[in-house]
Amino acid sequence: MPKQYGQSCPVARSLEFLGERWTLLVVRDLLIAPRKFQDFTASLAGVTPAVLSHRLKVLETHGIVSKHLYCEHPPRAEYTLTARGLELRPIVRAMGIWGARHLGANWTFVHDACGTNVESAYYCPACDELVPSDQVKRQPVSSRKRRSGTMVR
Amino acid sequence: MPKQYGQSCPVARSLEFLGERWTLLVVRDLLIAPRKFQDFTASLAGVTPAVLSHRLKVLETHGIVSKHLYCEHPPRAEYTLTARGLELRPIVRAMGIWGARHLGANWTFVHDACGTNVESAYYCPACDELVPSDQVKRQPVSSRKRRSGTMVR
Repeated sequence: MPKQYGQSCPVARSLEFLGERWTLLVVRDLLIAPRKFQDFTASLAGVTPAVLSHRLKVLETHGIVSKHLYCEHPPRAEYTLTARGLELRPIVRAMGIWGARHLGANWTFVHDACGTNVESAYYCPACDELVPSDQVKRQPVSSRKRRSGTMVR
Repeated sequence: MPKQYGQSCPVARSLEFLGERWTLLVVRDLLIAPRKFQDFTASLAGVTPAVLSHRLKVLETHGIVSKHLYCEHPPRAEYTLTARGLELRPIVRAMGIWGARHLGANWTFVHDACGTNVESAYYCPACDELVPSDQVKRQPVSSRKRRSGTMVR
């Protein structure tokens, strides 16, 4: 299992397994389409089968990835993101947006309608509106009833 | 220096140094306020001075953090996020939003006006509108002139 930070902060908890080397690149690839084990070797040059297998196992254990055996002898599996895994899309995109902007890259994320680079933003499902960054605040979970939206955007 | 993935994908490039253990927690803390070296020891229990020093050095090298010596003998420094570093806020928040939703946590991000949990979203600075997730697409950088917004949200 990944190393723990021992914090109840949601950023630290996410990083405990998303922060392992290769993990978010596995998620990146699965956000495009389901993949067989050997498909990853093309996009993730340098990862060993043992490390890839471990990363997929951790993601499966955390309910991020589901594994479907399409051949029993020899065992061959296809991996798909679960609903919980699909909700990692904003993290991967935020990394891509920042990386494309500051580190140079071969592609970036654009608005399909006009081709302009999109920015990361925040949405309030109750008010149905875009929330400027400075109107987002940290709030203890225990002090109020949590109201979660659907996170489909 | 952090390990390289050898990819020109912007997600992989970001992860080459943001993906190192502790790095995004250092950024998380600096998003709240500038910090002295010893301030991190309270929020990042378990990090060794050598590792913390290395992480801060990498962030400084990449122009994410600026270091200000407030005492020369003995050398004591305060660390602040640069403009480029402040643009990491959406990555940290997206991790926090996902972690609070799926892993349990002691706080989450809410809309200041109504207290509802915010969601990660996308904004097009040219159209000045929220862009639904399925209207964001990957596009090669070389095929068009890049138009970047201000990423202030």
